[in-house]
Amino acid sequence: PSCSSIGADFNRRQKPIVVVKAEVQPINPEIRKTEAKVVDSVVLTELAKPLTAYCRCWRSGTFPLCDGSHVKHNKATGDNVGPLLLKKE
Amino acid sequence: PSCSSIGADFNRRQKPIVVVKAEVQPINPEIRKTEAKVVDSVVLTELAKPLTAYCRCWRSGTFPLCDGSHVKHNKATGDNVGPLLLKKE
Ligand code: FES
Ligand code: FES
Repeated sequence: PSCSSIGADFNRRQKPIVVVKAEVQPINPEIRKTEAKVVDSVVLTELAKPLTAYCRCWRSGTFPLCDGSHVKHNKATGDNVGPLLLKKE
Repeated sequence: PSCSSIGADFNRRQKPIVVVKAEVQPINPEIRKTEAKVVDSVVLTELAKPLTAYCRCWRSGTFPLCDGSHVKHNKATGDNVGPLLLKKE
């Protein structure tokens, strides 16, 4: 190609389109990464308080309990996740 | 710049480096996206079975219950998430 056509191609070149598939990303960046699968058990008769919130956002500093970190995660990402509430009655 | 220098720049140009921060991705792609925050409540006296698994991977077809979809998610992403088990005793 001529010199001018190379220049034109260079300048017209589009920015790469980056497709980020949220579905193929891990959702847990940090919690107990040495475990193959993080499963927690709650024995209901051992719950102390009438209401206990359990984390489903994988961002809590007190995992498996919810510490409110889902609020920051939702704000940063546009997500809508929240805890599971266990109620004694 | 001369014609040859434009060509050299063009050819040497590196592929863009794409940094995907998992931390700033939503973790819930599909569940109840019309709700600002997905919170579920379990009244413990209403649990029927001795063991009930609740989803924390946001991939279950029976959310808020776990249907085993975390296995596929973990395999596809290298993640290590799993359910919260509620045990009547
Ligand atoms: S901190 Fe994770 S759901 Fe609240
Ligand atoms: S299906 Fe989500 S934790 Fe099992």
